Amino acid sequence: MAQDITLMWGSGSPPCWRVMIALEEKNLKGYKSIRLSFEKGEHKSKQVMDINPRGQLPAFKIGNKIINESYGACMFLENEFKSQGTKLIPDCPTEQAMVYQRMFEGLTLAQKLGAVVYYSWNVPEDERRDSAIKRNKAALTEEAKLWEGYLAKQCKYLASKDFSMADVLVYPYIAYFFHFGLCEKRYPNLARYYHGLKDRPSIKKTWPPSWVDIPDSKDVMNDV
Amino acid sequence: MAQDITLMWGSGSPPCWRVMIALEEKNLKGYKSIRLSFEKGEHKSKQVMDINPRGQLPAFKIGNKIINESYGACMFLENEFKSQGTKLIPDCPTEQAMVYQRMFEGLTLAQKLGAVVYYSWNVPEDERRDSAIKRNKAALTEEAKLWEGYLAKQCKYLASKDFSMADVLVYPYIAYFFHFGLCEKRYPNLARYYHGLKDRPSIKKTWPPSWVDIPDSKDVMNDV
Repeated sequence: MAQDITLMWGSGSPPCWRVMIALEEKNLKGYKSIRLSFEKGEHKSKQVMDINPRGQLPAFKIGNKIINESYGACMFLENEFKSQGTKLIPDCPTEQAMVYQRMFEGLTLAQKLGAVVYYSWNVPEDERRDSAIKRNKAALTEEAKLWEGYLAKQCKYLASKDFSMADVLVYPYIAYFFHFGLCEKRYPNLARYYHGLKDRPSIKKTWPPSWVDIPDSKDVMNDV
Repeated sequence: MAQDITLMWGSGSPPCWRVMIALEEKNLKGYKSIRLSFEKGEHKSKQVMDINPRGQLPAFKIGNKIINESYGACMFLENEFKSQGTKLIPDCPTEQAMVYQRMFEGLTLAQKLGAVVYYSWNVPEDERRDSAIKRNKAALTEEAKLWEGYLAKQCKYLASKDFSMADVLVYPYIAYFFHFGLCEKRYPNLARYYHGLKDRPSIKKTWPPSWVDIPDSKDVMNDV
């Protein structure tokens, strides 16, 4: 089955990374993996646009089915390969409810992270305001504290006693936080979670190669 | 089972509305429905904060399980009541892939709609710029055209030959578009979809009551 799968991805993109983690967790080895460069604009190339007309990565194809939305691709893989590899949506309703809650809260975290990290990218220079940067950082700080609190109540994983879809979807954002310099001392639970999963095979194998090559931008999260 | 379910909601909120549609589709009649007022700040009241510490609606409880994220609540209801009411995630992998794709593309639509409709709410007066309003409207117009195109290829529903989770999650946004004055002549496929589902029992029954009471704000989408 894995030979029917094509994933086009860019290094350091949480949406790409999570699909790679899901593929590993579902034991789908040997899929066609095509690394492209955002810097060179390859996400707007014909080979991407043919699969993903939004010109975004990931671009994901499985057989003749296309699911470019990373949450959707991960959900589809779990459904299609339910009994293969790691079970990512638990059967127990109580655990399942918490997995769904954290999975989708992850989108709020993403939105607040993006507002800080991509501010200069999203907002033209003459519209940028220090007050907006300050407000975005305050919102992100509040969000980071929430997740720090969530992890206090769990030991190793985000939503359940086992690794789950919530970890597949949200771990890349937590790693992103620390990549951009979140203070480990101020967020000890997030740091413990981050380091605790770094060596999990699905995560270690798919770690963004550009994060190894390029020094981290450690100042972005200084005051979060 | 429905008597174990509590939903706190506000009228006109797509996230609240979609949970109500899912409950109807899964034949969960007689749940505890508590309408609250955003205008009066009731989403920050203790009864909400006890369930949803973010102080947002919906606040959703089923037995002792809490899932306030509307996408998560709908997914949970589908999983928990798989063989009851409408099947919202099709078994056929090709249909299922398309349902997941459209479900999560709906989040991009939501984000672009929100940037236009809530601009004055989100951005303090001294930071507002006409250039930003124009850019947000252009992004929303591009997005609306995409969905107009998607619907050209389908007859009645968004992602499959049958009503699916994509409709549960995205229909409230399409209705929102027209509530705020999207031109039916410029978007005939979206308009056909919108009117075609208005009388579906799950949608008719849960139609935002405030949209009936209060005249529409028809100017917001004038130039989309």
